[in-house]
Parts: sequence; structure tokens; C-alpha cells
Amino acid sequence: MTDSLSQSLVYFFGQGRADGTAAMKETLGGKGAGLAEMTNLGIPVPPGFTISATVCGTYLEVQQFPPRLRPQVETALQRLEAATGKQFGGAENPLLVSVRSGAALSMPGMMETILNLGLNEQTVAGLERLSENPRFAWDSYRRFVQMYGAVVFDLPKKLFDDQLESRKHRLKVARDIDLPLDELKATVADFKSIIQRETGKPFPENPLDQLWGAIAAVFESWNTRRAIDYRKLHDIPDSLGTAVNIVAMVFGNMGEDSGTGVAFTRDPSTGEHRLYGEYLLNAQGEDVVSGARTPEPIDHLKTSHPHAYTELERVARTLERHFRDVQDLEFTIERGRLYMLQTRRGQRSGHAAVRIAVEMVEEGLISEEEAVARIPPNDLNQLLHPTIDPTAHLDLLTTGLPASPGAASGTVVFEADHAEELGRKGVAVILVRRETSPEDFHGMVAAKAILTARGGMTSHAAVVARGMGKPCVAGAQEIDVDEGQRRFNVDGRGISEGEWITVDGSTGKVFAGQARLVSPTLGAHFNRLMSWADEMRHLRVRVNADTPADTHRGRDFGAEGIGLCRTEHMFFEGDRLISMREMILAEDGEGRQRALAKLLPMQRGDFEGIFRAMEGFPVTIRLLDPPLHEFLPKDPAEIEALAQQTGRSVKEINRKIATLSEINPMLGLRGCRLGIMYPEITAMQARAIFEAACTVAERKGRVQPEVMIPLVAHVIEFRKQALIVRQVAEEVFRSRQITVPYLLGTMIELPRAALTADEIAREAQFFSFGTNDLTQTTWGLSRDDAGLFLPSYIEDNIIEFDPFQELDTSGVGKLIAMAVDLGRRTRQDLKVGICGEHGGEPRAVHFCEAQKMNYVSCSPYRVPIARLAAAQAALAERGTMDRTRATV
Amino acid sequence: MTDSLSQSLVYFFGQGRADGTAAMKETLGGKGAGLAEMTNLGIPVPPGFTISATVCGTYLEVQQFPPRLRPQVETALQRLEAATGKQFGGAENPLLVSVRSGAALSMPGMMETILNLGLNEQTVAGLERLSENPRFAWDSYRRFVQMYGAVVFDLPKKLFDDQLESRKHRLKVARDIDLPLDELKATVADFKSIIQRETGKPFPENPLDQLWGAIAAVFESWNTRRAIDYRKLHDIPDSLGTAVNIVAMVFGNMGEDSGTGVAFTRDPSTGEHRLYGEYLLNAQGEDVVSGARTPEPIDHLKTSHPHAYTELERVARTLERHFRDVQDLEFTIERGRLYMLQTRRGQRSGHAAVRIAVEMVEEGLISEEEAVARIPPNDLNQLLHPTIDPTAHLDLLTTGLPASPGAASGTVVFEADHAEELGRKGVAVILVRRETSPEDFHGMVAAKAILTARGGMTSHAAVVARGMGKPCVAGAQEIDVDEGQRRFNVDGRGISEGEWITVDGSTGKVFAGQARLVSPTLGAHFNRLMSWADEMRHLRVRVNADTPADTHRGRDFGAEGIGLCRTEHMFFEGDRLISMREMILAEDGEGRQRALAKLLPMQRGDFEGIFRAMEGFPVTIRLLDPPLHEFLPKDPAEIEALAQQTGRSVKEINRKIATLSEINPMLGLRGCRLGIMYPEITAMQARAIFEAACTVAERKGRVQPEVMIPLVAHVIEFRKQALIVRQVAEEVFRSRQITVPYLLGTMIELPRAALTADEIAREAQFFSFGTNDLTQTTWGLSRDDAGLFLPSYIEDNIIEFDPFQELDTSGVGKLIAMAVDLGRRTRQDLKVGICGEHGGEPRAVHFCEAQKMNYVSCSPYRVPIARLAAAQAALAERGTMDRTRATV
Repeated sequence: MTDSLSQSLVYFFGQGRADGTAAMKETLGGKGAGLAEMTNLGIPVPPGFTISATVCGTYLEVQQFPPRLRPQVETALQRLEAATGKQFGGAENPLLVSVRSGAALSMPGMMETILNLGLNEQTVAGLERLSENPRFAWDSYRRFVQMYGAVVFDLPKKLFDDQLESRKHRLKVARDIDLPLDELKATVADFKSIIQRETGKPFPENPLDQLWGAIAAVFESWNTRRAIDYRKLHDIPDSLGTAVNIVAMVFGNMGEDSGTGVAFTRDPSTGEHRLYGEYLLNAQGEDVVSGARTPEPIDHLKTSHPHAYTELERVARTLERHFRDVQDLEFTIERGRLYMLQTRRGQRSGHAAVRIAVEMVEEGLISEEEAVARIPPNDLNQLLHPTIDPTAHLDLLTTGLPASPGAASGTVVFEADHAEELGRKGVAVILVRRETSPEDFHGMVAAKAILTARGGMTSHAAVVARGMGKPCVAGAQEIDVDEGQRRFNVDGRGISEGEWITVDGSTGKVFAGQARLVSPTLGAHFNRLMSWADEMRHLRVRVNADTPADTHRGRDFGAEGIGLCRTEHMFFEGDRLISMREMILAEDGEGRQRALAKLLPMQRGDFEGIFRAMEGFPVTIRLLDPPLHEFLPKDPAEIEALAQQTGRSVKEINRKIATLSEINPMLGLRGCRLGIMYPEITAMQARAIFEAACTVAERKGRVQPEVMIPLVAHVIEFRKQALIVRQVAEEVFRSRQITVPYLLGTMIELPRAALTADEIAREAQFFSFGTNDLTQTTWGLSRDDAGLFLPSYIEDNIIEFDPFQELDTSGVGKLIAMAVDLGRRTRQDLKVGICGEHGGEPRAVHFCEAQKMNYVSCSPYRVPIARLAAAQAALAERGTMDRTRATV
Repeated sequence: MTDSLSQSLVYFFGQGRADGTAAMKETLGGKGAGLAEMTNLGIPVPPGFTISATVCGTYLEVQQFPPRLRPQVETALQRLEAATGKQFGGAENPLLVSVRSGAALSMPGMMETILNLGLNEQTVAGLERLSENPRFAWDSYRRFVQMYGAVVFDLPKKLFDDQLESRKHRLKVARDIDLPLDELKATVADFKSIIQRETGKPFPENPLDQLWGAIAAVFESWNTRRAIDYRKLHDIPDSLGTAVNIVAMVFGNMGEDSGTGVAFTRDPSTGEHRLYGEYLLNAQGEDVVSGARTPEPIDHLKTSHPHAYTELERVARTLERHFRDVQDLEFTIERGRLYMLQTRRGQRSGHAAVRIAVEMVEEGLISEEEAVARIPPNDLNQLLHPTIDPTAHLDLLTTGLPASPGAASGTVVFEADHAEELGRKGVAVILVRRETSPEDFHGMVAAKAILTARGGMTSHAAVVARGMGKPCVAGAQEIDVDEGQRRFNVDGRGISEGEWITVDGSTGKVFAGQARLVSPTLGAHFNRLMSWADEMRHLRVRVNADTPADTHRGRDFGAEGIGLCRTEHMFFEGDRLISMREMILAEDGEGRQRALAKLLPMQRGDFEGIFRAMEGFPVTIRLLDPPLHEFLPKDPAEIEALAQQTGRSVKEINRKIATLSEINPMLGLRGCRLGIMYPEITAMQARAIFEAACTVAERKGRVQPEVMIPLVAHVIEFRKQALIVRQVAEEVFRSRQITVPYLLGTMIELPRAALTADEIAREAQFFSFGTNDLTQTTWGLSRDDAGLFLPSYIEDNIIEFDPFQELDTSGVGKLIAMAVDLGRRTRQDLKVGICGEHGGEPRAVHFCEAQKMNYVSCSPYRVPIARLAAAQAALAERGTMDRTRATV
């Protein structure tokens, strides 16, 4: 307590030096720290002082200021008077100040700014005289009373706006600034009456009262609902508090030699190295933001005020060099002289982030590690997928879940076959379904994008779309899809087959009509950055790919192997589905074997293609996983057709469907349970894998198959399946006279497998964490059904994130960590990876690095993201990365 | 190796002393140890010797005897000759021996006995002379050759039996013993020819060859398929091996002054303290077993051979005192003189076990702890449920799963309403369904027993039946239920409505017709035993009860509270279901509240009844758990009716049903997720609980409600629900002006809850492990769907037991242990219990004791079993219990 009592509550800056520095963000807030640092750098900043954020908590707790604050503020005011040669509340040469909040982290919802504080009936007269511009003085006064009423007294803005508008209307005046002086004065009087009427208190004439009222208002704004919610959402501790910045006013509204603006040191959308921004002459800050007047591009300043522009360029260069990053600046020009009011790290697009980071390395400003650490991995999505032209005018229909990034326009179709047919003709189509199932796969291939009314971020539509890198909006619950009528209704509007819509899978938004799109570009900067990242990371990055095409795409994005090849997707096409159904309908092992014999060459062909495409990188093939009923038809007509194809009776088929139907298919006869009940399936799949591998190896191709047994709960399940795979491998190697080294491992996707990982690792050579299913079972939460409540859970902050989107490190992660530890206890060289939807999620990648896993695997379009995240994770583990950077 | 080399391989007994003792079971096997101990006790046992079980493993590995065995056996033979005054292979006074196997644990499938070994053409002549009974001598020889051929040469018994039978038929002789001497001699010759013909080898004439052949055969029989399977099933190590007992023959077939028999020292079926058994005069051992002659009850021996009987009684008394337990004896009387051939622990019924244990305590033979430790808890089932008269002749239809113990006969009905209607008229009915659902509940109440074709041991039918203590056979897959035709077919037979069947839920057997049943009795012995058990145990035992009736039943069985009161069962009856459906169909919170207001008084009434019945013991009430669609009708007619009842359209209802339908209901909108989405439900249930509690408390009743929030995955779910419950409690207490102390806790039934138990225990005052759901999620295994593969898993030994029947301590148990530990870290006095199906399972009770839980809770009829198991667990933890005892 003594320490904190001896610590200053107020930090002055001005006249070339400041009490604080940029390092004191926690105390001074971002804004205050920037002002102090700029002052110390000799950059023109109006003098002022910052009240420490530590005061905020005290004030909010006891609803009064700590006693020692008042003298410190008064001392600072005196220093400010000395620095400016003006007097706070003085009628001769009045000191006016701005009061602004500023926490350590940028945060919406808090009070922003009060300008021109210190004005009253006396000081306004002084300002009139000094500026020789009564209209300026009274406009400033009007602005101050208006802001104070809205912000400090928390009155509805509308009260003041309506008053002002009706006056302008009556006088037939378009702009505030065109009001005659008398009317300005009358407006100030009216505003004061409004305050008196609404609050029962007069507008405070004493500038000190004004100041303390504003300071209190800043602190109070820390606890508005919006601010609290924002902090909760972003894990910002309530104890952080906000600082208060009190800065001598400089005026951008003193005439045409004055102005105000904002600027980025580089173009935040392209990354181009040039000053970027806009400004308004004869204006104060809020004019730029309000949009009432259209600001000029910053380039124009070069001609209009070349001196100020040169100065701004110099300051920008200095600040960028100093902070070693793009800065977002606020400035005011008062009678030709430039003042800087704020500097902070500049937000930028994904494209810009990459270009800036790479160019800054080239300029010697930052290291390669810093460049890599700086890019939020998910920002790469903007480089990988088309986006909607930000200038386009759009007609929003509804918003669903942003299930697979990228944007696309097309005409609506409701049926997979129809999508395929039109797609072949080159028509751009968007497949709209209540939800998709594996039978819609060919339609999804043909479509430009997918829109579903049901299903979450890990629904069939979402997963398949991400795998193909196609935009998808899932779970757009407001749309009512009538597949029979070939239309969907939303919010009273109907969209029929053939009409154009645009789907933005990055935001979840669905628009009517066709929108202009911006194509993705990767280019040299991207490649350079990724090559650095690849050198830094430990984790290998693999791709989840089920087809040679996916495999090629993964390779193009830098995947170093396949982490998950789902063999079931291979069974859904044409003839294969028929053979698969024959297999399921077979009466006995022999009948199954006959049907499987037809599937063998097709599957072998797929594997050959995949092995070749992977050029010797490891390929993890998961044996058949889904419940068999997924392969059977549901529709009576289809059942009839199947009966004819297979020579069985409809009754027989229906009986089989009934037998295989499950109450909880997620927890039923699937995964290795299938292989145990029908060992012929495992044997066929193993044969296809090893025969394909031998064929590639015989032609001098390198090939590394890794056979993965899914859904193991008990080590003996693994042992039984492993025995079959090993026997088949030996048979194939013997008959082909060649041996291909392979690994045999399992997916850890049930809690029991994680809990008994030591036993399983005695038999399994690798673990791949199937985090989708592991999340489902650990939470007792079906992905397919979570839609009934998970959105509310997230909205109500019961859980902070969707555990199917982000890895739940405190629950599921605990199981994973336990399994890695147990597994490596019995097998030191156990290869460990993660596949499933979390594999490309940056926080999950960090987690995997911390667990010292060997690889992560994700859908093709997430591979670059995972590569970058893996590099950042490696840097973070080495301690050389500022973690806050990449996540801001 | 030196040690084992110096150790004897052969242990002699005879002339009043033995090399071995009863403690050397591992070496001597059960039989050998018993013979040694009896010899040392001075009990008349024919002399002999035992070859150590350690020889078995060596022999089986190298297929030859260890070199030092032969001299040791020869020395023992010489001692035996000295003890008997006879000569092995001697023609004058031939020594004959029996050769019998005997492992440390009794085990079917192994070679049992060869009698009369040592006979050949020479020695049989000696026996003829000595016995002065040529028929006896040749009959003995005939038996020996026959047994040797079947057992040592492994020839089909039928070869010998057919030969003998055809001779008897030809000579018109009924009994073997009536064959003339010549024919006996001819038979021996024929048997030898059979052996020569079938094996290509002559019958060994040399008694030493006979002996070594028999010893080898005993060892070989350790590895028969049946023996191996039995050991696998009972976790008996293969390395145990069997000993071989070689004992001087005494002859029960020397005439009417000779005989052989078996006896128990107490009645193994009633426990009555009297000699119990049977015997045959002029017979050898196998005659008693074969059933060719009907043995006499042992009482008759008292009159026929009073001296032998008195001696047998004396021996029985001595052995029981010595072994402090009921003995199962084999004896032979040779010319009036009694010889004991075996003593071992006597198997007994549940009734007998209880009575014997209690009476032995009264006799001062064993301690109360031993009495308690000795009863296998599940044997109490026989005392709690009716059983089928063991003498009844039955017509087996099929066998399903023994889902709820007890037996019942009744006429078949296929429909719940019909069952209720007939039940009201006093007709005994058995409800037969493909599977049951909550809507069948009233039919199950009315039925004497339940039979289902589908579903496992934890299916709806099984769980409800166990709760009511009604017999149930579930998953009888062979029966084909045609509910429309009101008949079921099994194995080509049809059973129609109205026909009688008998269901034995203890064995899973279903019989045609009505069987005689034996009623259960508890009585004084049971109460005495349980009162001892209650003093010894630490674990409290509660009952799972949803109604006042169940609660009373639980109290009668000694439950000390309710561990699980499932509130949803209260909503399925009559008006309640209608209100429940109104609630589900409501458009908004207000509509739900209106419907819930109708349910409130009904639920409050239930709780009042339950609180009163529990007389101040704690009552854990679980808030609504199942998915709402379980309450909605499926049948179009019912939907129509619901539409009329609620004034809603069929379309509306169908839409609601579609909205609520789930792909994996087990992992969907249920448990606390319901209460979070519809907080009105939680509030209504809390109000019903606390108002009922206040009403009881106002009338000076003691009441301890414990409110349990189900299916928590994340602590915030608990926090949100707890807030509602606490608010309602305070409101009720304020308005009723009385305060009832209560606890607020959660069910730990998802892996994530277990993994984050430390966080949850900060808020929850108790944990109750819902092991059913925890098993489902940990294994990723739906109880409802496991029937497609779990039976094969158990059959193929992939898993050793059904994890829904026995607690999976290495998987699920690991999570439980972790949760108990984590929970108590943040709340030292956390109350911990287990509910669900495992609560009454003895091994799970031991596990709970080891985890230092506070209580277990189970269905009413399992309460006594849990009480006993809890006492045994406490004894085991104290180390005073011989664990093997209770599980043999």
C-alpha cells in the first residue's frame, strides 16, 4: 500500500519531455503512453497529463476520487498553464482541454472524447478575442456543451441534434458552420436549458467542475454494459481500468489554415509503403468521423499545406522507425502548425499485413521472426479466398454461420443432381439445402458455394466445403427451405430456383443478387513469409485429403503429408455406392467378400493416385468409419431401385435398414467396431492400401502409408484390427516381392482411449487425435444436434467459444495432454498428431506445439494458416514472440 | 532353480501323518490339500500321495516328466505298499490305486478320476482270491479298462457303452452288476480289443505303465479347450497347473456292507444344520454320479449302517470345526469301514449361505466379520425374488438377458393398456414388447414380468423393471414380436396373447406354460446378518426411487436416503403428460409457465410423499433430464388427440416434433441444457421441492432435500442453474417463514465434468456419479445401440464384461477417481456418491469404498446387496477380509 501511495497518479507531458513512456501502457493506457512517448521523441504534441488507470478501480469501488488525486491534478494543471502560457478558467487567455479515455487495450463502449473543456460565458469571450473569430469561439462552445450534455450527463444525443436540425431547417442552412453567430449563441443557451430541464442541474460554469465531471464520466464509462460485455468476450480483466488524458486543446477549426485528420504510415489495405489517410480543413475531430462532410485524401494535403504534409511525413517515418510497426495517427493542424494527438498500432488487412511484414524485414526494420510472429494466421484467409468488393452495394438477406471462408455468387439450386447438371454447362450455381448429406457430395462439387438452413460449423456441409475451399454459410436458421417448391423464404421474401444470390462464407452473410468479387492473390510476399515460417516451425503440417485432387491442392499449399484420408468418401460415388450397398446387404462373410472384391480395385486406384500426389510424404489412411446405415437409401424410390439392382426384395432391404438404424449413431456401430464385426472390410481396405503402395514403390516412387484404426476404446479392439492389417500387409509384400515400410496407429477420439493411452501405445505406433469426436464425447454434445442450444450458450457467455471451432484446452485438451503423456511413457518415439477441424485453428496449433506433437493436419485451405501458426507457436515456446501481437 | 530343485515333487500321506497341509493348496491342489489335512487330523483316509501342480507346467512345456519325478514317485509307491501291506503289481495282494486330478481352484473340463488302477490279468486273480468275490474283481477290472480307454486314450465313451449295452440286452440283464462272471471277463477282453483297434496299441498290462499313462493324461487334460475357456472366463492363470492324487483304493463295491456317497455337513439349499447327502451300497464313485441307480438319502445310512453313519457324523463335525465352514465330502465304506476321499468347501444357495453364516457365529465357530465377508452379495437376490421350483419340469422357449432377477408366470399381453386392464382384474400378465418406452410404464406396473426382444441390460425395460423389482428378460433376440397380430414367434413356435409363459429374470430363460415358483423369504437370519453388515460399513446406501411407493420399498430394504429421484418419470402419467406436452408446445416463456403451473401442485405432492416416506433421510432430486421429444407422441392418432387437447393444429405439433427431433438424443438438448434454455422448468421444479419440504418441516417432519443438476459439462452451466434454485428457495422460505437446510450439487456424468471437477466443486456441494451416462460418453457407446456389437465383443473376449453391468474401473473409474480427487481439492467436505445401475454392483461398491465416497445408491431390490457389499468393502479395506471367499 505504501508503494502505491507513493506512486504518482498523474503523469505530465509537454515541453519536450514526459513523466511516462510507451512501456507504461498499463498505467497510462494506450493513448497516454503514445502521447508520452511522442513527447519524449520531440514530436509536436500539445502538452497535457494522464490520470493513471489505477485510479479507475478505486473510483468505481467507493464512488469518490482518492484524496491525493485532487492536488496532483491541480499541480498538473498549473504545469499545463505554464507550458501553454494560458490560464484554466482565465478570461484573458483561457486554457481549454480535451478529456479522453484510454485503456491499455483498445475497447469500444467507453466514453471517447470531450473537446473544448474549460469554456464558459467568460472564457468564450476570451477565445473570441484571441482567435479574432467569434463564430469559431461560439461553435467550439456549442460543441462542448453538446458533447458534455450527451457524454457526461448521459442525455440522448437526439435531444441536441433535433434542436440543432430544426434551427438549421428554419434558417435554411445546410452546415452547422453556416449558422450566424447569434444563432450559435442561442443554440448554446438552448443546449444549457435542455441540460437544466433533463437533469434538474445547471450546466457547470466552473471549468474545474467541468473537468472533474468529465473525469468521473470517463471512469463511469468503464462499467457500461457494452464495455463489460466487450471485456468478457475478449477476456480483458475488469481490474484493468481506464486512464484519463487531459490535453491542451489545439484547434482544427480555426479557419482554412487549420484542419484535422487521421493517417496510416502505410496503406492498411494493400500494405503499400505510402502515407494513407484523410483530413478535413476547418474542422474538429468528430467532423471526420461523423461523415457529415466528406474528408479529403491525405495526398491533397501535400498541395494544400505542403509544410504540414512534410512534417506529417517526417513524424510518420519517425514513429514507424521508433515503434517498428505501422502507426495509426491522429493529427490537428492549427493555423498551419501540425500537432499529433494519437499514435497507435495500425490495423491492417491480411494482404497488407503480409506485405508490410515482409517489406519491413527488407528495410531492416524488423527480424524475420518478428515478421512471422506478427501476422494473425486467420488473416491469411483473405489471401486464399475471393472476397466481396468492399465498395459494392449489397442487399442482405440473412446471416448464418461463417462455415467456410470466401465469397461466391451464383443462381440458386436445391438439388445436387441439378447442381451437377448446370455446373457441367458452366452455370455458376449455389446449392441451397436444409442440410446436406454425403449423397449431395457431387452437387457440392459442382456448386460455387453452399448455403444450409441447419447444421453448425462442423456440419457435413461445413466440413466438406472447407475441405474443398468452397464458401459455405451453414445454419442460416431464418431461411425456410422448401425443396419441393424449389424456393426458399426468408423474412417474408421468396427466392426461387434460378435467382442470383451471393454467399460470403467469411462473414456468414447472404445477399440477394450478384456481387462484385475480389480475387485472391498469394504472390511473392506471401511465399517469402511462408518460407521463413517453415524454417522456424517444429510441427509438420499435413492436409486432410480424401482424393488425388485434394491431395494436389494440399501439396500446393505446402502440406507435408496427409494426416487424415477418410476412405468412406470414396464409397459414395456411382458404382461404388452400389457395391457398398451389396456388401451391407450380404447375408454372410462370403457375400460381403464378393461385394468387397468389386470395391477393391477402385479403392486401390484412389490410394495409388493419392500416394503419387503425396510424393513420398506420409499418408495416414483411416479405415472405414461411419455407420453402415449412412450408405443405405432412405427414399422409397431409391429402395425400390436398390432392390432391382441387387435382386433382393424391398422387404428384405427395409428389414436391413431397420436393423442397422440407431438411436445414437454417433455412439453406435462405427469405427473399428465395423471392422471387428466385419473383418472382411478391414482386410479389403488393407489390401487396397498395400497393393497401391507396392505398385508405387515398384516404379521407384517413395511411399509412406500410415494405417489408422478409428474409434478405439479398448486396446484389444486395436490389437484385433492390427492383426488383420499386418497379415494382409505380409501377404501382399510376399506376393509382390517388395516391402513397403508402414506405420500402424490409431485415432484417439474417445475419452477411454485417452485414459488408457499407455496400454494402446504398446501396440499403436502413432496417435492422431480426432478432436471432433473427442469433443463430442467429452462434452456429451452432438455436433448435429448442438444447434438447438449451443448458439444460446455462446450468446449467454456460458461457454466462451464453440468447442468444435476452438479446442477446449481445459477439458478436451486435458485429456489430450494426458494421452500424449501416457502414450509416450510406454512408447517413447510415439508419433503424435491432430486431425479434424481443430488442426488448422491457430490456438489449437499452439496447444499442439506445447504438447510437443509431431504434426497437425487440416483441410487444404487451412494449411498455410497452420504453417504460420506452427511457426508462431515455435517462437512462443522459445519465448521470442510477443504473443499479444499476433492476436490483437 | 536350486530351491525348486530341492523342493519335493511328491507329497505322501498315510498312517496318521502327511507331508502336506491344507495351506499348500497351490502345490497340492484342493483335493490333495484336503487329503493331507484330513490325514493329519487323524480322520480315516486311505493312504496315498500327491504329485505337485508345479510338475504340470513343466510336463506340458517339454512333453516329458522331470527326471527327478520318477524316483520320487517310486519311493512314494514303496511307502504306500508299506502302509497298506500290499504290492503294486503284485499277484498275491495287489495294491490298486485311484488317480485323480486336482487344481487349486475347482475347475470343470479336466480329467476326473481313474479307479482300480493296477489291475491286470495277474492282479485281478489276486483280487479275486482276496475278496473271495470274483464278480467284484472282474467288475472292477471292467470299470478300470473302460475308464482308462475313455480317459487316458481319449476314446469315445460310446464305444464302450454300446458294447456293454448290447451284451446286457442280449443277456436280458438290466444292471451291469448282474452280468455273469464269464460275460464280465468277455467284456474286459472286448474292451481291450477296442483299445487295440482304435489306438493301434495294446492295453498296458504293466501297472507302472498304467500309472504314468494316467498321470500324463491328468496333465494333458489341463489343456483341453473346455478347461482353457473356463480359466479364461474366470481369470485363472494358465500357469497354475493341476496336481495328481494317487490314492490306495478302497472299495464300495465289495458287497452290501460296502458303499460310496457324498455329503454336506449342512443342507446346502436351506442351510439347516444336519448331515445332507446320498449314497449307494455296493457301488463305486461313478455310479452315484451317472444316475443309473437312484441313490439313497444319507438318513437311511443311519439305519442301514449305524456305525458308519455315526463315524461320518463325527468326521463331518470335526472337519467343519477345523475348516470353519460347510464341507462337501466324498466317502466310501469298505466292508463296514468308513474312508474319506475328499473334503472341500461346500457350495450353497443364497438362503443357506445366510443361515449357515449366522448360525456359525451363534455356535462361536466364526466371527461376525467372517459371516459378513462370506456371503457373495449377489446371492441375496435369491432371498429377495421368487425363484422357479428347481424340481419343476420346464419347456424352454428361449434365453435372453437376465435383466431383472426373479421369476414370474403369467399370460402374454402385448400392449400396456391391455396389461393394465387385465391387471386390474387380477389376471397375472407378462408384458411382451419389441422394446419398451416410457409410455409403457403403466403396463409394466400392471405386469408380473416383462419380456423384450430388443435392448440390453440397461434398456428402458431393464432399468424400470429392476427399479420395481419385477422380473425382466430383455434382448431375447430370437423372439419375433408381432404386436399387431398379438403373438410372438420363437424357433418355429407361436405364442399368442393369453397363453401362459414363465420368465426367469435371474437366468434370462423364458419357458412355455406356468411353472411352480418358490416365494422369497428374508427372516431373522437375514436381518441379523444385515445388522452386522450395517455396523461394519462406511458407505451409506441409498435407493433410486421416483415415487412414494419405491421410497417405502427402499426404506424396507434399509436404504438411508434417496440417491436419485428422477423427476421426469412423474410427468408420464395421465394429466401430467398433457400438461407437460402443453409446456413443450408453448410459444414462449409465459405459455410454458402457464403449463408448468398445472404441473407444480402434482410434483409438489410427489415430493411431499417422498420426503415423508424418507423420514428425514437425505433425498437427492434430479431436475428434468430427458430430451423433450420423449414426451411427445409419435403415433398420428395420438398427435391428432394432442391437437384436440391443446387446441393446436396437427401441422404445428408435427413441426414442433420435427424441431425437437435429434440425431443423437443422448448427446442433445437434455439435462441442465433444458433448464438453461427453459429456466421456467428449473424454477417450477425448485418451487415444488422447497414448498413440499416446507410443508413437511412445518409439521415437525425432518427433511433433507438435495437438489441435483444433471448433465453439467461446464461449471457455468451449474452456476446458472444454481442461481435459479437458490433464488426460488429463498423466495419460498421467506413466504413460508421457515427455512429448510438443503444441498445443491451435480451429477458427474460427462467426461468434461470429471476433468474439471475442481472448478465445479467450487460451486457444487455434492457430486453424484451418473455412471450410466459417464460410461456411454467415455466409451462412445450408446446403451440403446450397443446391442448390435457389444454381445460379440463380450463373446470374443475383446472386453471382459459389459461396462454397463460392471464398472469399468480402468477407463470410467479412472475419470471418477480423478474427479473425486479434483473435487475434494477445492471442497474438502464434498459429499460424493454414485447412482445409476452400478450403484448396487458389488465390485463397484468396493471401488466406491476405495475412493472414500460417502454413499452408493441403487434400485430398491439391490439395496441389501449394496449394504452387504459395502460392509465387505470396508472389511477389505481394513484387510480383515479374505477376498477370495466372497467371490468363489
